[in-house]
Amino acid sequence: MNPRLFTFVGGTTGPWAVEKMEAVVGDPLPAAKRLNIVEGAVIDRAAETVWMLRGVTSNERYATRAEKNLMAAKQVALGRPTATRAALIPIRKSAKWWAMTQDERRAVFEDTSRHVQTGLKYLPAVARRLHHCRDLGEAEPFDFLTLFDYAPADAAAFDDLVAALRVTAEWSFVEREVDIRLVRDGG
Amino acid sequence: MNPRLFTFVGGTTGPWAVEKMEAVVGDPLPAAKRLNIVEGAVIDRAAETVWMLRGVTSNERYATRAEKNLMAAKQVALGRPTATRAALIPIRKSAKWWAMTQDERRAVFEDTSRHVQTGLKYLPAVARRLHHCRDLGEAEPFDFLTLFDYAPADAAAFDDLVAALRVTAEWSFVEREVDIRLVRDGG
Repeated sequence: MNPRLFTFVGGTTGPWAVEKMEAVVGDPLPAAKRLNIVEGAVIDRAAETVWMLRGVTSNERYATRAEKNLMAAKQVALGRPTATRAALIPIRKSAKWWAMTQDERRAVFEDTSRHVQTGLKYLPAVARRLHHCRDLGEAEPFDFLTLFDYAPADAAAFDDLVAALRVTAEWSFVEREVDIRLVRDGG
Repeated sequence: MNPRLFTFVGGTTGPWAVEKMEAVVGDPLPAAKRLNIVEGAVIDRAAETVWMLRGVTSNERYATRAEKNLMAAKQVALGRPTATRAALIPIRKSAKWWAMTQDERRAVFEDTSRHVQTGLKYLPAVARRLHHCRDLGEAEPFDFLTLFDYAPADAAAFDDLVAALRVTAEWSFVEREVDIRLVRDGG
């Protein structure tokens, strides 16, 4: 098994209660009451599972060394005890995005859309882990799954972050996005 | 199933006879007499299968638009009737490679190692298809599988191509490489 693989299981079990699920663009996902985040593959799909999404963490695709160093100096890992709010945001980008070369995608991602610079403003309040789905062996409905967590007091800041990204040129290539907000048990 | 997935099956069947298998660096693969190239996944592993390697074609990772246009003007697809020789070259790069940021990897790949410029010299004689394995859900023994085909008269040129790449700075990050040469039935 790939140790970088994570499975996100929407259904009726798991430590995260689904507070809200919104289809930002494209088709929604079926409603789920709870989310479980599993390290590795889930072989046997439980009867109560509504959907399963899989993704792998991977190497940096766009950030430069200078940008990565800025992020590394501020960012924190998922799972702080105070981070009782989370968001899982699955995204699929268009065929037009994937047909672009590396320099063209980088130009949209940062030179035009300031993806890294915008994200930096919300560190360390918002922790983030990016999972890639596009190059899994099975066809997947999304290209990326991003998991964020933050304290309740930072929920408004997180709303600002996603709003800032959604008006960028980069987001004109997003053809499906679902925004799933989560509250941890006891949080 | 992901329509970009290919499975390379080493064993006793398939249209390609294995002429030579050489471990260039790192562990060899077990000897196989023939190779079958399957579009998609292979669910049931046959008793005579010696190894199976899987990979997906994907978006460009390093080439710029200018470089891609130069390649597109000269390159041809695999499968020309005259291309009765082939090579399957599985490669794994080191953790140090994958820890580098995009700008650092690009600098080694092209600014220092001239990977695209070297490859361009051998177009259209050598056709090439790159498959990625690193972000598949299962742990795979290699990061990339590259399949090349060419006419018998271009076999020496192909040897020159791989020799030129193997002395580059980029190849100092290659920790496993197996070179499998193939001859098509009737070729």
